[in-house]
Order: sequence, then structure tokens, then C-alpha cells
Amino acid sequence: MMTVVRLGMIGGGQGAFIGGVHRTAAALAGNWQLVAGALSSTPEKARASGAAIGLLPSRSYGAWPEMLERESAMAADERIEAVAIVTPNHMHARPAVAAMEAGFDVIIDKPLAGTMVDACAIADAVRRTGRRIAITYTYAGYPMVKQARRLVAGGSVGPVRRVIVKYTQDWLSRACDLEDNKQAAWRVDPAQSGEAGAFGDIGTHAANLVEFITGQRINSLAAELSMLSGRVLDDDGAALFHLSGGGRGTLIASQVCVGDANDLAISIYCADAGLHWRQEQPNQLTVARRDRPTEIWQAGSNRAYLAPELRAIQRTPGGHPEGYLEAFANIYVAFGHAIRGTVTDSDEPGFGTLDDALSGMAFIRACLLSSAAGATWVDLQGMES
Amino acid sequence: MMTVVRLGMIGGGQGAFIGGVHRTAAALAGNWQLVAGALSSTPEKARASGAAIGLLPSRSYGAWPEMLERESAMAADERIEAVAIVTPNHMHARPAVAAMEAGFDVIIDKPLAGTMVDACAIADAVRRTGRRIAITYTYAGYPMVKQARRLVAGGSVGPVRRVIVKYTQDWLSRACDLEDNKQAAWRVDPAQSGEAGAFGDIGTHAANLVEFITGQRINSLAAELSMLSGRVLDDDGAALFHLSGGGRGTLIASQVCVGDANDLAISIYCADAGLHWRQEQPNQLTVARRDRPTEIWQAGSNRAYLAPELRAIQRTPGGHPEGYLEAFANIYVAFGHAIRGTVTDSDEPGFGTLDDALSGMAFIRACLLSSAAGATWVDLQGMES
Amino acid sequence: MMTVVRLGMIGGGQGAFIGGVHRTAAALAGNWQLVAGALSSTPEKARASGAAIGLLPSRSYGAWPEMLERESAMAADERIEAVAIVTPNHMHARPAVAAMEAGFDVIIDKPLAGTMVDACAIADAVRRTGRRIAITYTYAGYPMVKQARRLVAGGSVGPVRRVIVKYTQDWLSRACDLEDNKQAAWRVDPAQSGEAGAFGDIGTHAANLVEFITGQRINSLAAELSMLSGRVLDDDGAALFHLSGGGRGTLIASQVCVGDANDLAISIYCADAGLHWRQEQPNQLTVARRDRPTEIWQAGSNRAYLAPELRAIQRTPGGHPEGYLEAFANIYVAFGHAIRGTVTDSDEPGFGTLDDALSGMAFIRACLLSSAAGATWVDLQGMES
Amino acid sequence: MMTVVRLGMIGGGQGAFIGGVHRTAAALAGNWQLVAGALSSTPEKARASGAAIGLLPSRSYGAWPEMLERESAMAADERIEAVAIVTPNHMHARPAVAAMEAGFDVIIDKPLAGTMVDACAIADAVRRTGRRIAITYTYAGYPMVKQARRLVAGGSVGPVRRVIVKYTQDWLSRACDLEDNKQAAWRVDPAQSGEAGAFGDIGTHAANLVEFITGQRINSLAAELSMLSGRVLDDDGAALFHLSGGGRGTLIASQVCVGDANDLAISIYCADAGLHWRQEQPNQLTVARRDRPTEIWQAGSNRAYLAPELRAIQRTPGGHPEGYLEAFANIYVAFGHAIRGTVTDSDEPGFGTLDDALSGMAFIRACLLSSAAGATWVDLQGMES
Repeated sequence: MMTVVRLGMIGGGQGAFIGGVHRTAAALAGNWQLVAGALSSTPEKARASGAAIGLLPSRSYGAWPEMLERESAMAADERIEAVAIVTPNHMHARPAVAAMEAGFDVIIDKPLAGTMVDACAIADAVRRTGRRIAITYTYAGYPMVKQARRLVAGGSVGPVRRVIVKYTQDWLSRACDLEDNKQAAWRVDPAQSGEAGAFGDIGTHAANLVEFITGQRINSLAAELSMLSGRVLDDDGAALFHLSGGGRGTLIASQVCVGDANDLAISIYCADAGLHWRQEQPNQLTVARRDRPTEIWQAGSNRAYLAPELRAIQRTPGGHPEGYLEAFANIYVAFGHAIRGTVTDSDEPGFGTLDDALSGMAFIRACLLSSAAGATWVDLQGMES
Repeated sequence: MMTVVRLGMIGGGQGAFIGGVHRTAAALAGNWQLVAGALSSTPEKARASGAAIGLLPSRSYGAWPEMLERESAMAADERIEAVAIVTPNHMHARPAVAAMEAGFDVIIDKPLAGTMVDACAIADAVRRTGRRIAITYTYAGYPMVKQARRLVAGGSVGPVRRVIVKYTQDWLSRACDLEDNKQAAWRVDPAQSGEAGAFGDIGTHAANLVEFITGQRINSLAAELSMLSGRVLDDDGAALFHLSGGGRGTLIASQVCVGDANDLAISIYCADAGLHWRQEQPNQLTVARRDRPTEIWQAGSNRAYLAPELRAIQRTPGGHPEGYLEAFANIYVAFGHAIRGTVTDSDEPGFGTLDDALSGMAFIRACLLSSAAGATWVDLQGMES
Repeated sequence: MMTVVRLGMIGGGQGAFIGGVHRTAAALAGNWQLVAGALSSTPEKARASGAAIGLLPSRSYGAWPEMLERESAMAADERIEAVAIVTPNHMHARPAVAAMEAGFDVIIDKPLAGTMVDACAIADAVRRTGRRIAITYTYAGYPMVKQARRLVAGGSVGPVRRVIVKYTQDWLSRACDLEDNKQAAWRVDPAQSGEAGAFGDIGTHAANLVEFITGQRINSLAAELSMLSGRVLDDDGAALFHLSGGGRGTLIASQVCVGDANDLAISIYCADAGLHWRQEQPNQLTVARRDRPTEIWQAGSNRAYLAPELRAIQRTPGGHPEGYLEAFANIYVAFGHAIRGTVTDSDEPGFGTLDDALSGMAFIRACLLSSAAGATWVDLQGMES
Repeated sequence: MMTVVRLGMIGGGQGAFIGGVHRTAAALAGNWQLVAGALSSTPEKARASGAAIGLLPSRSYGAWPEMLERESAMAADERIEAVAIVTPNHMHARPAVAAMEAGFDVIIDKPLAGTMVDACAIADAVRRTGRRIAITYTYAGYPMVKQARRLVAGGSVGPVRRVIVKYTQDWLSRACDLEDNKQAAWRVDPAQSGEAGAFGDIGTHAANLVEFITGQRINSLAAELSMLSGRVLDDDGAALFHLSGGGRGTLIASQVCVGDANDLAISIYCADAGLHWRQEQPNQLTVARRDRPTEIWQAGSNRAYLAPELRAIQRTPGGHPEGYLEAFANIYVAFGHAIRGTVTDSDEPGFGTLDDALSGMAFIRACLLSSAAGATWVDLQGMES
């Protein structure tokens, strides 16, 4: 058996959502072990949070610089090998850069950072230190999403013509939601989340899904973002976009669409088939053609028609649903393999790359610029500079 | 029993699609009888077509002017009372104006006309002659669409925030489709269909559905239309739009989306509920709220929770699906009641009005103008002038 | 064009359900015309009902014997050619036999009769007079049901192993339902409906669907029927059954299953595929195999993969839903073609035959006998004698 | 934080399916740690399997008696506290009894044992030793199944009238499947699985689901089981059954239903609502009533309308699908709480009890007896003796 990769976590203390998801994903992955953490920027809260999840007191640190320093000083076969950064967006860059400089690989929750400046700092550190980085674009971790990518890449469905993607939620649909949901307050505070709201939080997931499945980048877009009265960050918006390969699409992201929980849904119309996937029913991929019955491709480790590498990452045979946590775990599995050099799937890395992350940052900025200019068309190239 | 309304048909000869739908709808409606027709502009074909559907030879005319003249000369209780115009779009205006001038009410398939000039000519005739006109926006004939409209109008779901509508088909998805499908050739010929392709043919249905359910008009839009290489009319496109009440939306219309047959689907997100309807499963309306189970409202003449007027127009109790032809028939039923003065539902006319039709024409033109100008924003007001 | 078949109706007066369905189906079929009727056994009600639906007063008779006598006396090209019998079950046999003896073909709503004695009388008359008879097993009129039958008959899905069929409704789920629903009162009155309740009314539909799709007969069964306290006829029950070809199945019929409107659903598991169809979504047929994506076969006159004869009986292209009335109309269309000798589909008659009807009667009786004997196994062979 | 419960595993070596599921479930549960194992009855394979999953060599035993002996001798805060038995059915009783006698709590995969004699031996040991036992009836671990149970128990949906349950798979649908699937060979070998095939493997899951949701026992049944030619254990069958509370039902279990992966689906019709749940879409529960829109209850830790205890066991908010492994983990979570005395949900234990397990054994035996006697009715009471 491959030795498990030793993980340290920055952020994710009591009351946080995504930190717990990362920990469960790592446990489910099987090739990771969480051995250290600095779970909060408040030392007491950090230690209490560490105790609550069973970290050894000696490795539950009061602050992330302490963790990096003390872990670096340990024996090579004991110290952490990678750091998961699950802080609010504005707190991604400093620990990420420091962790890489200290010799650790890095996992960062999307988006890469709160601002393009921060994102560039991280990118510089990656290039400078040669460390590995993974961005947790969760939804690309679903096997049927990966299967869709392979269908497009394989050419059997023809070139992409039109993409329709939406990611809609309703947890901000009421004016009072900002007060009631302290846990998520940072997501709607520009000082912590960066300049975008829903488009940074979930629009970037939708954009990544488009780019992941099509194998293309979003080249240019015209977007219109808005927010409920009294808010400072976008909570809703829509965009027309062009793909680098020539296809066109529409993207909607909203956190005020009442009745939708986490409705990420995508249709990719190619010249010879339409592909449809919806996150809330993630174990099926619809492949529709003219002059043939519509096909429902179904997940499962025993599905002969799925790509062998995709069968291998599924834990259960067909009809035993896997879900969000398993998709998230798949990202950890893949990054663990990358770190250990045991990758067997050459099709795609299995986790969001730095390029994916920078593309996501450019997407966010382009949406903001376009919307501010009356939904005019904006190019994403050169957005990083 | 109400006396049936006597109908004459212009167009709809052998090989046509929508003419047959109108005839079936009229038969299903029960309050109409097709008694005369000029089914083609070629006299021999007109007569052969009339014979094929069982028209009396004496009332199967070789040309529509002949029909209008001869029918006008008959006794009042024998001659036709209304004319259904099911010709290609460029052939709507002349017979429509002539029919109204001859004292007949008029049913016209959407869009109102091939050009705004023609549309204005029809509008003038309506105002001048005082005749009734109905536009067959089929999908507003579905009971669950009408129920959605009532939910919005009733205020219980709150103001409209965002609309997502798509109408996608695939019958033009291959370059060769234009050659193979002679029956529909007129739809892609600018001389016959007018200046728009898919947006005139089905985009206008999607736009009408938005306006019908929300009770608002599309005020302005930014659209990008395109077509497969070698074509002259749009076969695909998308638009961002604003509603007169302040909500925003996206609209997609395409006839090259492979695998989609007739996929008209709409989501209307209001402040307190999301409404979802899809034409291919027309007998259910989804009403989703926060903090409550999602509701599936189901069609049926015996559903106590549906509006009484909507129960009354359904032919069967719940679980006995009604479909496209029944929706179409509902339009004929309603127009028949309007002609006889036996209307009982005061909520909406039950058929597309002249205003609806003109709004549809403005929508088409605005899409074309916006797309030609690089998807800039265009106002729909004043488009008719 | 084929001359329309002239129809007379017995039963179906004001307040009845199925009579109206037959009339709409005949109108939608296009090859029938309702020209006469004796719509009630009460002469005044018969005449009022006839007037309400637009029958000529001269051909709206006060009683069915009068209709048969007077119509027989008319000219051959004017008198009715067939009679639709839509009376309560106990009133099927006498008019049916008399109509056949008077030289008319007969359409009877299922089940064939209220008792086996009556059923045999009808069967005798068919054999004696040589008249045609059609039983309106509605659900076999759906194109996708016919497609399922062809898949089984064609052999590509292998022999039938297991069938799961249910037909559940809820309109009798409350004790008070019998009082409230006068229109349907006859269905729960043994004197009018015969000895079975739900199993006669809808169980027989489910049984016919099994036999129609599999091309086999139900050979033997063990059934347990029951009813809410205070009722005299079954309103709920289940059966295990064996098919003549060796497969096994379960059948559930109930009118007290709360929340189900008209939920007829069938799964036919064959050695190489499973077929699934549900009446409330009638335009799709699911074909599931091992090692292949599940296929959704979709209805539509333009679906290249459907049998040509089935494309021909559909009125609209894919994505334009047809429903219950269209399925019913298909039975009329087929019987009209049989009468005119213009049948083009040699696969199956398109309407329920006398054999189907007798099999249905045997099914009902076997269920009652089995249930009375404690759900013991009963053979259906020889049930008629 | 609660101290994790230390677990030893018997069975589940390389090539086994359910052992891995138990390990993943324990990891996902968070309140368990696998610290020891005797993963095979072949010592070398046991040790190799232990190494492959990262067990310490010192606690990876060559045989289960050795594990029980050596672990018993360890310090109380170090030795295992419970044993998971994931061997073929015929190997449940001996290690279970020995483990309980050695002072360990026990988790056993369903069914309890291969024979009633074995089951009684386990039951005796439970009563004698006072140890805790949990049976992993996986599907009762799904939150929406638990919600269905609460709806029934709460009385708002009225008494249960009819249950329809099916559990169908297709992995044995071909004659050759027994040869090809070595991993599952024991399931079809009477010496290892016991006297039942599909009914022991999955029929018992279906029966438990019925009993769990209704809160009643299956009292009596008539079943007909069969198998493909050449097999010795049932691979398909159906039963009529009666519930202790008076309702009736049908149950189908099959491993030869082509196209079905793991299709466990249940409908519970009560006097005031119908409840519907399907394992392949486990995050929704349909609640259908007359005169109200059908409700889709959706899973999620943030769904205000779900029981608080059920919200608490979910890991993610609505729209982030949880699946089979999470349901399985819920059983471990609950049993861990029972062992630690930290149970907070008083509604039901959260895992299968001894009574549930014995009821399952009686169900299996009753099915076999009934089928052997020609599907006659068999009482389940007294089956254990």
C-alpha cells in the first residue's frame, strides 16, 4: 500500500463549512492523513477546534506560521507534506506562498484568491518553488463529469457548439440572510471574499465546469451582475460567452434563485450529440443524439462502458450512489497520487491546476468589468497582468 | 349547446405541418367546424388538398381571394365566420387584411408576419375593421402554463427576479437538413419566413411564454445570433433581457442543439418561489420554495388546487395526459368563446392578442438589431414604428 | 380520402365520463363521424344529451332499440355503420348483441361485460353474425406501448422473465367517495358493474397491457382482493401470475392508493433487456441493458428508430406530447381502417379483439375466485365455460 | 470530542466487496478507528490483506480466534471494543458468539446468519453476554428513509394500507455470471450463503425496509421463488405479504432483472398520503396526497422541515448529494454513539437490532417454505423455534 500523505490544515475551525468537507474528503480518499492544523487565526479557537476533531495537542497550532515552522523542523517522514488552505479567500495567498516556500505542496479551495494580485503572488510562488498546487474545483471530481470530458475529447460527439450552464442557490434570497448566516458571512464581505460575491463563490465553479468538460477556455464574455438592495457584492448574474474553440454559451450564477439548493447543471451541445449533467443527480450523464434513443450513462465501478480510469476511482458498483463528498475525495486521491508519483490516468490531473485557477480568476474579473461597463464584451486574455 | 363557429382555412395544403395541427385543434376544440378552405396558392393543389381532408368541392377554393369573395356572398348563417391563416410568414398580411376587410375574424399562426411592415399592416386592419384576431402562441394554451401565470399574478410567489427560458430543437443541426426537409423549407428562406430564422420560428414562442407567465413585457435585450456555415438565417442564439417589471432573464433559441426535440423549458424565479415548467412534460408545474418541500402541481380536470377556470378547460381527470394538440385546441376553444361572447374566464383571453403579436415582432427585430451590432443592448419600445 | 365511418353511440349521456372520451377520440381520429345516438336509457335525458352535443334531433333517439331499428331502415350510405357502447358494464351485452344482429359493427368499452354469461353472449353473437368488434383497451393505443410489444416480438430483448405491473388510483380512497362521486357510482355497484370493482375497472387494463406487450396470456394467478370497510366490491388487490410463455409477474390494482392519479406502470424484464413504461409519461419507453447505457426511446412521427407503422399513427414530431385522448383515438383510427379494409399494419389489429376481451373476463373471474379461496392458484383456461 | 471506538474486522480481505464498504463507512463515520483485523481465514491472505489496508502488522492477525484472544489480553484503553463481521453468511455465527463471549460488541452484515440455527446461536449469545449487536441494514441508514418512518409513526399520513417494494439487480442475469464473478461466488453457494440466494442477499433488505418504515412486522406471506436453469439457490421471486398492523403488500427481489443495478424502491400507501422512495435517488422522498400538490422532500442538513435528528446526521446542506457510503456510515455513527452512551435520537437506534435481524431470518425461511409448498401462506411467528 502507498504510504498515506500527511496533511496540515490552515483554517476550517469550528463553525466553518468547507474545512470539514476537506477533512471528510481526505478521510474518504484513504491516501491522506490529517496530522496537524492551525484551524483558526485566533489561537484559542484554533486549539479548541483541533481538539474537537482529534488532532494531537502537540500538532494543533495556534497560528499557521507556527505550524509551518514547527513542522518544517520535524523529521522528513513525520512532518506534514502538504497543506490544505480553507480560509476565506483574502487569506489564501500569504499562507499558500509561505507553505510553498517552506517546502510543502498546497491544496487551496476555489477561487484561488480574493484578488488578482494575490492570485499572481501564488502563481509566482508555484513557479519559483516548484511545489505542487491543487485547486478544489469539486464538481470536476465527479466521475460522470470526467466521462463527459472524455466524450468531448474523444471526438465522437463532434465539436462544441453551444454550452448552457447554470449554478443557482437560494441561501441569500432574503434580505435578512446576511444577518442570519454568520458561518458564511465572509463570503459576502468584500474584505474577506474579494471583489466578487456569487460569481467568485459559485460562478467560478460553473466556469471551471465548462472549461473542464470542453477542454477549452472561456475567451470573452458579456456579463450582467446584480445584487439585492443593500448588498455590496453580486448575488446574481448572467453572461454570454465565447469559447476558445469557437462555441458559444450562457452562464448563470445566483444565490437568490428561490427553491434551488445547489443546482449546478450543464448542457454541452456538440455537432453530433448533446451532453447533459446535473449535480443534484450526479451519477448519470445524458447523451442525446438525433435518430437514436437518448442514452443515460450511469456511474458505477462495474459499468463496462465507462473509461477504465473512471471505473477505478469509483468505490461502489452501479446503483450505489456516490455523491458530493466522494467527488471531493477524488480530488484528494488524485493529488495524493501526484505527490507520490503513482498517477495512472494520463487524461487529466484529477484536480484543478494553477492554470485552471488563473482562468477562474480571469473569469471573475472579466464578469465584474463587463457588468460595470453595461454588459459589454470583455476579453479574458491578459487579465492576469 | 353553443353553435359551432364556421372556419375557413388559408394555406395548410398537402405536405404542410401546421395546417394539419390547426385542423386537428379545431376538431378537438369542439366549438369549430372547418367548412371551407383555400389550402394552397396553386389552384390544383388547393383543390386536391381540400378533397383529401373532406372539404366539400364547392367550398374548396383555388385561391384565397376567391374564398373570401364567395363566402362573403353566402347567407350569414352559412358562410365562414373566421379564417385561419397558416401560410408561410410572408403570406400572412395580405390574406389577413383582406379577410378582416371582408368581415371575418382571423386566426394567424405566429409570428404575426415576416416583416414589421407586414405586421403593422395587420395591426392597422384590426384597428380599422374592429375584427377579432388570435395568434396561436401554442404554449400559452397549456393549463399548467396558465396556472403559473396565475401564481405570479396572484402575488403569492412574490415579484419576478430572474427568468431562464430555452427553446431548443435539432432538426437543422446538420448542414444537409435544408435540402432534406422540403416541407419546412420556407422557414429558412428569408423571402418566405422573414428576416429571422430560429428566432422568428421558436424564439418568439419562448419570448411570448416569458411575457405570458410574468405578465410583463421584455423591455430591452442584448442578443447574439448565429447560423451554421452556408445559411442565411439564424439557427441559434442567446439573449440577456430585462423585463418591464425589473426582472432579468436569459433566452436561448436554437434549431441546431443536437438531441433536443422540442425542448421549451422555463424557470421563473420570484422572491418567494421558483416556478419550473417544461413543454415535454407539460402536465406538471414545479413550485419550489425555501424551507418547504418542493411541490409538483399536476394537471387534471379534478385537481382541487387548480384554478376552476383551468379545471374547466381540461378534458380528462389527473393522470390522463393531455398534450400539444389539446393545448392548441384550447386556443381555438377560447377564440370560439370570444367570437360567441361566451367567455367565462376573465383572467386572460386564452389566445395571443394583437399586442402579444406585436411584442413578438419587436422581440425578433430587436434580436436581429442587437446581434448585428455585436450584442449591444436594444430597447423594444418604439420598435414598431 | 377514405370516407368517414358513421357512428352511433349507446350511453354516454350528460354526466358520464367515458362517453365523452369516445366522442373526442372519434373526432380526433378523423375517420369517424358521430351521426346518431341513444345517449341514455331515459328518453328525455337521451334527447337532451343528444342536443347538447349537437346530434341532429332526428337521429338522437330515446332508446337504443329505436336507434337500431330506425337506422337499419335508412339508406346504406346514410345509416350508421358501427355502434359504440359506453354504458355501465351490465348494459353491454343486450345492445351489443342486438347491434350485431342488426348488421352493425361494435365498439365496447372494457371490460367486455359485467358477467361471464354476458360476455359469452357477446362472443356468440360475434361468431354468429360475423360482425367486427373492438374493445377499447386504451393503453394499448399508445405508440410506445406498441413499440414495446414489437421489441418483445422481434426477439432482440430475449424471452420474458418477469413482469411488474401496477395500476393505482386514489379516487375511492376515502369512505365518503362513494357518496360524493355520483358520476362513477355505477362502477361500484355490483348490479351495474358486475362482480368486480377495481379489478374489473382497471385491473383488466393492467392485465391487458401485460398480454399485449408480451404477446402471451396470463395462464394462472393467485390474487388477494380487498375493500374498505362498508364496501361490497374490491377496491384494491394484488396478484402473482404466470404467463403462458413461462414468465412470472405481479399485478397490483387499486383505487385507494392515495396520491396516485392514474398510475399505470409496467416493467417487462426479458433475458436481454428490461422495458419500462409509465402511462403518466407515455411518450417515452425505457430500454435498459447490462453493459450499455440505458436508452430512452421517445415518441414522435419523425423518430427514425421507431417502427414505421408507429411513426405513421403519430400526429406530431418528437417533443410535441401526445396523450390519453390520442391513444384512445388510435383505437378508433385502427377500427375504422379495419371496417374500410385499409389496414396497413399487419403486426396487430390496433384495437382489443374478442379474444383479448374474453381473456380479460377470465382474468377478472380468476382473481375473484382466487381471492375468495384465500389467494390460492387458479387457472384461467376454461374460465369462459 | 468523543473518543473513537476501536474496531477489529473479521473477513473483508482482498477481493471482497462488503468489507471495504464497512471500512470506508467507519472512516466516514468519524467516531471509529479500525485498529485490528483478521481479514481472511487463510493466514497468509489475512496478513497480506491487512498490510494492504495499512493495519499494523502486530494487529493484523492470521485468524479471528487469535485476534479475539490477543486483543482481549491488551489494556482496556487499547484493545478493540467491537468486531465487524463481514464474512460469508455461514461464517457469521462462530466468530460473533466468540467475540461476544470475549466481551466485544458486534457488527454483522445482513442477514444475521446462513441458517436459523446459527441465528439462534447468535441471539442466545446476545442475551447471555449482554453485548451490543448491530446489523447493517444499509438502507435504513438513509436520512429520507428515516424521515419516511417518522411520517408514518407521527400519524399524519394515516395507517398503512398497501406497500409495494422491489429490490432488483441484474448481476446474475446470465447463466455465465456465476463463473465470472468469483468475488461474489459465496453468495450463490448454499454452503456459504445459507439456504437462500437473492432473498437472503437482497430480499431481506427489502423486508427490513418495509418493517423499518412502517414500524410493523411482516406477519405472513405467500412467496414464489425461482432460479435460472442450473442454479441451486433462488435468484428471483415475489411475495404477497400481510403486515402486523393489517396492511398488505407485495415484495419482489431479483438478481436477474436485466438493466436494474441496485433498484430498491418502495411505496407506502397510507390512508392520507403515499410515500415513495428509491435508493438510486436517495436524497428525495415523495409525499403524495389527494387535493394537494405532490411534495418532494429533499435531504440536507439545512432543510428546516426535516426532523432535527435527521438534519444532524447529514454532512452537507441541501443539494450536495450524499449516497450509499454515507448511509452506511450513519449506521456506524449510531452504533458508536450507542457504545459510548451518547445517543441523542430516541426515535430509533440507528442500526438494525437483533429483533430486526431475527425478523429477517424468519422472512427468508418463510419465503423458502412458502415457495416450496406452491406459494401457500406461511406465518412468520414462531419461525425461530
